[in-house]
Amino acid sequence: MTVQETASLLQSLDQVLILTHKRPDGDTIGCAAALCLGLRQLGKTAWVLPNEDAHGLFDPYFQGVLAPADFQPQVAVSVDVASQGMLPESAAPWKDNILLCIDHHGSNEGYAQHTLVDPAAAACGEMITKVLTQLGVTITAPIALLLYMAIATDTGCFVYSNTTPETHRIAANLMETGFDAQWVNKRHFRVKSLKRMQIESRLVRDMDLEQDGSLVFAYVTLDMIRELQATEEDLEDISSFIGLLEGVDNAVTVRQLKPEECKISLRTDGKSLNASLVCARFGGGGHPAAAGCTIHGTPAQAKAAMLDAIEQVQHG
Amino acid sequence: MTVQETASLLQSLDQVLILTHKRPDGDTIGCAAALCLGLRQLGKTAWVLPNEDAHGLFDPYFQGVLAPADFQPQVAVSVDVASQGMLPESAAPWKDNILLCIDHHGSNEGYAQHTLVDPAAAACGEMITKVLTQLGVTITAPIALLLYMAIATDTGCFVYSNTTPETHRIAANLMETGFDAQWVNKRHFRVKSLKRMQIESRLVRDMDLEQDGSLVFAYVTLDMIRELQATEEDLEDISSFIGLLEGVDNAVTVRQLKPEECKISLRTDGKSLNASLVCARFGGGGHPAAAGCTIHGTPAQAKAAMLDAIEQVQHG
Repeated sequence: MTVQETASLLQSLDQVLILTHKRPDGDTIGCAAALCLGLRQLGKTAWVLPNEDAHGLFDPYFQGVLAPADFQPQVAVSVDVASQGMLPESAAPWKDNILLCIDHHGSNEGYAQHTLVDPAAAACGEMITKVLTQLGVTITAPIALLLYMAIATDTGCFVYSNTTPETHRIAANLMETGFDAQWVNKRHFRVKSLKRMQIESRLVRDMDLEQDGSLVFAYVTLDMIRELQATEEDLEDISSFIGLLEGVDNAVTVRQLKPEECKISLRTDGKSLNASLVCARFGGGGHPAAAGCTIHGTPAQAKAAMLDAIEQVQHG
Repeated sequence: MTVQETASLLQSLDQVLILTHKRPDGDTIGCAAALCLGLRQLGKTAWVLPNEDAHGLFDPYFQGVLAPADFQPQVAVSVDVASQGMLPESAAPWKDNILLCIDHHGSNEGYAQHTLVDPAAAACGEMITKVLTQLGVTITAPIALLLYMAIATDTGCFVYSNTTPETHRIAANLMETGFDAQWVNKRHFRVKSLKRMQIESRLVRDMDLEQDGSLVFAYVTLDMIRELQATEEDLEDISSFIGLLEGVDNAVTVRQLKPEECKISLRTDGKSLNASLVCARFGGGGHPAAAGCTIHGTPAQAKAAMLDAIEQVQHG
C-alpha cells in the first residue's frame, strides 16, 4: 500500500484499537499514541491496547490513550509490529484479525489484511508522520513529541546508521511545533539507572582483553545479578555496551543463566570476523555483525570455548 | 555583519590563514577545514594554522589543509573563537590583526575587524554552511563531512538543548551529499578509550550517594590517576559523567590535584540548588547549574565541606 491508500483506509475507519509490539520500545509506543491522537483529531474514537511489557520509562506517553476495559473496537491496527509472534499476550484475540499494519521492518510477514511497509524509514515514526500529514491531521506539539520520541529512540538520537537526511528533515519539522525536545532527550539519552551504572562498572572491572585488545570478553554472572538485584530492564541491550571500547573489533558478552549455562552475544565489525559462523559452531546463529548462542559451562569455560571457535573461524 | 556581507568580504580575499581556538574541538576544526576547502574551490589560496593542542581524534580532518611553515598569508580569519585569549600560542603573531571572525558565542568580544556572530546557531558549523552557500561554493561530500562533524560534536549528536530545527535541517542537507556520516558518528559518539572506561568504572564503584540519592559525590584521586596512568584527555569533561545517574539532581565531582587540594565541580538541576552560591562559599563561582571551586583538604574533607555548604544553601 502507499501512504495515500493507507490514509484513505484510515479515513474510512472508526472505533480503532491500536496495537504495539511485545517488549515495546519508543518507536512502537510513540507511533501508537500519535496515531491515536491523530485519529481523534479527525473525530474518531481510538485507543491504544495496554501492553503488559511496557517499561515505566514510557508511562508519560500512554497518558490518556490507553483503552478502557469496556472499549468495543471495530478494527485493530498495528504499528511497528513485524510479525504475529511479536504481538503481546493482550493482543491475542486480534492476532488473526488485524486490518492494517504500518511498519518499517523489511522482514514484515504481511500478517495484516493491508500493510504499509517502508524499510528505508529509520523508524516507524517517520511513516506515521507522513500518514498523519496525508490524513490532514495538524501535527500539534503533543503529537510531534510522540513522533520525535519514536524517531529519536530508534536512531539512538540520530547516531545509528539507519539515520537518513529524511530522518533529520522530519525531526526538524516536528521540532518546529515547539514541544520540549530537551525533556525527551534527557529522559532517553542522558540518564542511567544506578544498577545499570553498577553493572557497566563491573563489566569493565572484570573484562578480559584478547588479541592485542581487539577482542574483548565481558561477563554478566549470576553472582553479579544477585548482588546488585539487577532486573531484565537493567540488563537491556547490555551486549552493546562493551563494544564501545576503543580499538575493539569484536566483543563477546557472556551472560550466565545457570551455574553451568551461558548465553553468548557476539558483536563484530562484520568484516574481520563473521559472527554467525562462530555462533553456528554452538548451534546458534544471527548476522555477520551480531550473533548469539548458548554454551554449556561456566563463564570461564564459555570464554575458552568461544576464544577457540573465534580463532578457528579467523584462521580457517 | 550579515552572512551576505561576510561572503562578499571573503570573496575579496586571497592568501587566507584560518585560525582555530585553544584546546580545539570538533566545531572549530571542522569549520576551519571546511572554510579552507570552500575558499580553495573559488580558486583562492587558503590554509589552516596548525594548532598545537589538537587531539589526535581530529587528525583526519586536518589532512591537506595545514599551513606549511613558509606560507605567507595576507589575512587571518578566525572561526568559533570567542576572544583573543582563546587563540592558541601559535596564533600570537596574528592576535591583533584578525580581519574576520565567524563565531556563534554570544560572549564574542569583537576583537576582529569584522565579526559575524549568531548565538542562535548550535554550532559555528551552521554559520559556515550558510556562508559557503552564499559564496556559491558547492558543498561537496568532503566539505559536508567537516561541517556535519562540527555540528554533531557541538550538539552531542543532536542531544543537547542547543539543537534547533535549523540544526536538523542543515544536517539533512549535508547528509544528502553522501559522505560517511556513520564513520563520523562512530568515531565521536560510539567509542570510549580503555582508560576512560576504567575511570568511569571506578567513579561508580567509589561514589557516595547522599540526600536519598538525589546528591552524588564522585572522586578522581591522585592514586587513581597514577594507577591508570590517566591523562587530561582521558579526564576531559569527566564532571558531566556522574550526573547521568537517574534520580540525581545535584552532582559533585571531587578531583584531587595535590594530596590536600581538590578541585570541585558542582552540577545541579539549576532549580533546587544554586551551584554558584555553594561554590562562592569557597571563593569559586560559575552559573546556577554548573560551578566550581578549590577546597584545601583531602577528598574526604572536601566532600564533608561541600555537603555542609550545600545543606546550608538549601536550608538558608
